Amino acid sequence: MMRSGLEVVCASARRAKASATADKRNERRLTAAALDEVERRAEKLDVLLVVGGVGPIDLHRTSAKFGYVTSTPKVGWQNYNLAGTVRDALGVPVGFDTDVDAAALGEARWGAAQNLTDFLYLTIGTGIGGGAIINGRVLHGLVHPEMGHIRVPHDLARDPYPGACPYHGDCLEGLASGPAMQARWGKAAQDLPSDHEAWNLEANYLAHGLANWVLTLSPQRILLGGGVLRQAHLFSRIRQELVALLNGYVQATEIMRDINQYVVPPQLGGRAGVLGGLVLAQQAYSNLDRE
Amino acid sequence: MMRSGLEVVCASARRAKASATADKRNERRLTAAALDEVERRAEKLDVLLVVGGVGPIDLHRTSAKFGYVTSTPKVGWQNYNLAGTVRDALGVPVGFDTDVDAAALGEARWGAAQNLTDFLYLTIGTGIGGGAIINGRVLHGLVHPEMGHIRVPHDLARDPYPGACPYHGDCLEGLASGPAMQARWGKAAQDLPSDHEAWNLEANYLAHGLANWVLTLSPQRILLGGGVLRQAHLFSRIRQELVALLNGYVQATEIMRDINQYVVPPQLGGRAGVLGGLVLAQQAYSNLDRE
Repeated sequence: MMRSGLEVVCASARRAKASATADKRNERRLTAAALDEVERRAEKLDVLLVVGGVGPIDLHRTSAKFGYVTSTPKVGWQNYNLAGTVRDALGVPVGFDTDVDAAALGEARWGAAQNLTDFLYLTIGTGIGGGAIINGRVLHGLVHPEMGHIRVPHDLARDPYPGACPYHGDCLEGLASGPAMQARWGKAAQDLPSDHEAWNLEANYLAHGLANWVLTLSPQRILLGGGVLRQAHLFSRIRQELVALLNGYVQATEIMRDINQYVVPPQLGGRAGVLGGLVLAQQAYSNLDRE
Repeated sequence: MMRSGLEVVCASARRAKASATADKRNERRLTAAALDEVERRAEKLDVLLVVGGVGPIDLHRTSAKFGYVTSTPKVGWQNYNLAGTVRDALGVPVGFDTDVDAAALGEARWGAAQNLTDFLYLTIGTGIGGGAIINGRVLHGLVHPEMGHIRVPHDLARDPYPGACPYHGDCLEGLASGPAMQARWGKAAQDLPSDHEAWNLEANYLAHGLANWVLTLSPQRILLGGGVLRQAHLFSRIRQELVALLNGYVQATEIMRDINQYVVPPQLGGRAGVLGGLVLAQQAYSNLDRE
């Protein structure tokens, strides 16, 4: 995913509801004012961060650079100890993960992925991002996934649009994100009528992504959210194309018979990330107990 | 991966070396003769199976169908209790997994993936298959991955070959497996000279697959084996194309600086599966202890 700013999201478990604020300023480290705002909102209870757009972050708890923004092209954030800055300023344990991983954790605890050990959370909006839970744990690996940037077939005869991704041109995000739809059709996704040809193309691209992830991650369910999915008719198109693409090769009743329960919207909507942050915060407190 | 038979592989930890035999007969359940052969070779110590070509298998230890071949189109194997048949015949605990998962386990213990928590084992031969270790455990998910069947861009102007996969045509396996190379160029991969145009195309397809897996699984290393990789010049081509495709988006020194140590051959060669089976056998014995 590529987004233009840093989002600082705060949640308080005590109030049992989520509140959010954002510092969208680019190229800026976390300001004292932003930290004050976090402190005020967090009520000294739980603090969580959901980071977008600042580039790769170090998620390895054993790493000396855990909690850092690492090699981002945004100079203000390069090699910046984001989690540590918050922890030192507020004196609380800090959870740290990508926005989509947090959302996946939220959906696992309270949403559409309860009782699943292996699933995929995807968001299709200003970017395309994915968080995977495998054997009950978040997949981080070497860095963290950047699923939106996989390559899928691009039929230039059908769709001459070259793609919006500054790194890859016509990767999946370059072809199927909200900005790509806007650039291709001259209209935002939410303003395109449901019978517009845009939707079959969009379903085709997203189904290619989903098929590749089904074949690679073998998820028990796929949660599909984000601004582009607000047009709900897109779900049935994607499901149909996904089943057609797999063509019976993955012989699971979940896909071949129950596809409507296999590709589903998240249940927590825009709150998934914040609620997932509460899970991260809880984990951060648990780690504290063990240390 | 699609392969034409069932392979029964036996290994004995006591003899500290691996031996293998195969029952290649299609459409046949495990014969008494094959079981006798297994028993004789296994020396009543460790028995392991590496299964290819019989279709989806149930790998969930808590499932009533654990150890079954499930919904394969090969009628002789449909709903067949493969692991149970061996266990009942021989009276030993039986490990059960896909061939590539077993190979990944072998490489993790004794080969090119020691001390890694997240990596990918790939084999490019008669089919294309992948086994992933995530957070130190095998990725099974809903069924098990079938990574070879992901879709990647196929430039029909450059490569009019329609693909060899009976399910998907020009999925990655359909475009880049050994049989696909043979069908496209009229010559087996091992017989194509190293300056043949086949190799740039092959590197391009495989690099597309690797890029998609890097972006999805974020492996710490990729082990790349199988018959097609016997032409070792293919490694440097693939590495170069992979770095070009990612185009600096995954900013890890492992990829951007140390790609030669990131995409590597397996160290155990053809013995990876058998040795991985010993790991499975050991796990089966450990599970016995706990039960």
